[in-house]
Amino acid sequence: MIDLTRVLAGPYCTMMLADLGARVIKVEMPGIGDDARHIGPFISNADGLPSSGYFFSINRSKESIALSLKDAADRAIFERLLLDADVLAENFTPGTMDRFGYGWEALSSRFPRLVLASISGFGQTGPYRELPAYDMVVQAMGGVMSLTGEEGGPPTRVGVSIGDIAAGTHAVIGVQAALIERARTGRGKHVDISMLDTQISLLENALVRYQVEQVVPGPIGSRHPSITPFGVFKSKVGHLIIAAGNDRKFRDLCDVLQMRDVKADPRFLSNSSRCEHHRALAARIEEALATRTAEEWLPILTQAGIPCGPMNDIAGVLRDPQLNARDMFVSLEAPGGMVLKTAACPIRFAGEQFANYRPAPELDADRNALLQELGLV
Amino acid sequence: MIDLTRVLAGPYCTMMLADLGARVIKVEMPGIGDDARHIGPFISNADGLPSSGYFFSINRSKESIALSLKDAADRAIFERLLLDADVLAENFTPGTMDRFGYGWEALSSRFPRLVLASISGFGQTGPYRELPAYDMVVQAMGGVMSLTGEEGGPPTRVGVSIGDIAAGTHAVIGVQAALIERARTGRGKHVDISMLDTQISLLENALVRYQVEQVVPGPIGSRHPSITPFGVFKSKVGHLIIAAGNDRKFRDLCDVLQMRDVKADPRFLSNSSRCEHHRALAARIEEALATRTAEEWLPILTQAGIPCGPMNDIAGVLRDPQLNARDMFVSLEAPGGMVLKTAACPIRFAGEQFANYRPAPELDADRNALLQELGLV
Repeated sequence: MIDLTRVLAGPYCTMMLADLGARVIKVEMPGIGDDARHIGPFISNADGLPSSGYFFSINRSKESIALSLKDAADRAIFERLLLDADVLAENFTPGTMDRFGYGWEALSSRFPRLVLASISGFGQTGPYRELPAYDMVVQAMGGVMSLTGEEGGPPTRVGVSIGDIAAGTHAVIGVQAALIERARTGRGKHVDISMLDTQISLLENALVRYQVEQVVPGPIGSRHPSITPFGVFKSKVGHLIIAAGNDRKFRDLCDVLQMRDVKADPRFLSNSSRCEHHRALAARIEEALATRTAEEWLPILTQAGIPCGPMNDIAGVLRDPQLNARDMFVSLEAPGGMVLKTAACPIRFAGEQFANYRPAPELDADRNALLQELGLV
Repeated sequence: MIDLTRVLAGPYCTMMLADLGARVIKVEMPGIGDDARHIGPFISNADGLPSSGYFFSINRSKESIALSLKDAADRAIFERLLLDADVLAENFTPGTMDRFGYGWEALSSRFPRLVLASISGFGQTGPYRELPAYDMVVQAMGGVMSLTGEEGGPPTRVGVSIGDIAAGTHAVIGVQAALIERARTGRGKHVDISMLDTQISLLENALVRYQVEQVVPGPIGSRHPSITPFGVFKSKVGHLIIAAGNDRKFRDLCDVLQMRDVKADPRFLSNSSRCEHHRALAARIEEALATRTAEEWLPILTQAGIPCGPMNDIAGVLRDPQLNARDMFVSLEAPGGMVLKTAACPIRFAGEQFANYRPAPELDADRNALLQELGLV
């Protein structure tokens, strides 16, 4: 596939397709490249120049060629690349591809088997189609922020760019669906993914809850809305998750935390009553947890049969035994020799190894090989 | 495809496949059905009995048959269904399918073209494989919570079940990839999706940032870490997003908010200095915004060329003009006659209409039609 995408949603989509076996040729602006090459954190390359660790983390296993879509000779190379391609991906503001002369009508008449994947902030249609795409804006407009944060507190941004990433994964689904249908029809399609649209499909039960209960849902904090105790609790050092989903687990929890009075307290006898008095119960649980660290508590709670889990920070994530057993981190050598771990592809097929991860390319790194392959030099 | 999944991650995956054109036959436990049928909010069905709006929102366009995988006659029907199926989806705890006699080895030897999609909390391998899957636990273990929340505050759950939903979308990708490869090889695959794994692939730049900067990233609040002002601001009524990404936009913002002294303040002259003094600047901006509601400010800011957007709550989402122009809400009649809007499929193909959304089925609703179709009655 040919990849005109920049920054995050598009490159994330094409990286996943590369992970799944696609050959991805990244077409970048001469001299500048993907904007993500200019976003930190930076590492020093072999020449001591800054090289983007951010770019490195979302462009593995791709090839790079620098072409200007405004230059006639470069356009000829670009069109030669399209001749062999199954998919073209782009995440310009809608209308930009038309101005390049590569709108869907023009492309599909010349390359009828080509699938065009377009990712934008608001989609190819509708009144906001030409507005710029910002992750935070679509998180805010899509309602996810209105549900995230402390109960009664302000709306809160999800701490990862879920606006971009959800769009990227849904674009992968759209491309695959178009390829599956092309096998039958022989014709490509224009996949139109809007970052805002994909936020709506993450809302899960909130839409229906609002319509049935006629109450606008607000931030729900870090506890289960209808099971108590089930949520995040603070220990002597660090937080942990305790998920005592029924009366028996709750009584077991009281035993292991030596909270005899809590176990007998009429406010805490049933789940519905515990939900009503969740603040008082959380205070007592955190008082008991204050004697040990989260790391010390987890084996004790697990031993007692209480569902629980660590609150991993990023350092903890990288150490996590399950994630390491699943080979969820790929170590790749970045420009300058630093070895960086990035998230592996989470799509696994039993009995198969992913072994074809290659580091992200330097700008224009594959020009000569590609031109030779096309017979253009 | 045949669908044994329950509650959220699995049904979300199979709903998306149904939206894309797959025929999905939901096999449910007799008398009980999908656990989601017992999760609120509830509406009254035609008999005045409670019917789950939650189930309704994630099971559209599927058929339902009740079969016990422990009953010989029902197993024969189930296996007859598998004979014609491309895909079987399940989200039991790993090991459960083996106990039913339907582990991957057994299935693939009898149905070599079948794709088995398994979704679990921690995957089919690794030390935690048999632990139960809870959205909050994988959100905590996967690191997303450690990045979400107010700066300096506690880790915060993302207000939607991103643990389940990310697993569901990645399962769709895995199923499609397996079907594309099957067209070449003639053989199915076992797709193994772990909710925890998919959390890692959402972490975006956090993994690399930590490794390069050697500082464990914490909650980053609702503002851009390196552009100011860019984030959520409070108005007289409601919050809004302002994304003044450069010096010129910042000066324009000062003009429209009539903050002459802020515009001249040396602390706010450059973006890096604005980032350093972001709290002081936010206080001044919110002081200025306090004179009008978010709804009043948005057209004024837009007119002045300041990138901005509404902080939609769920009611605002349902009213949003762009989302309505994109037909992002599907109105379907729930049991009892209430019409509920659910999120439409966000995967669009230019020039095509999705028109085949059907309401979620009642338990066992399609038994007779299915048995007739199979020649079993």
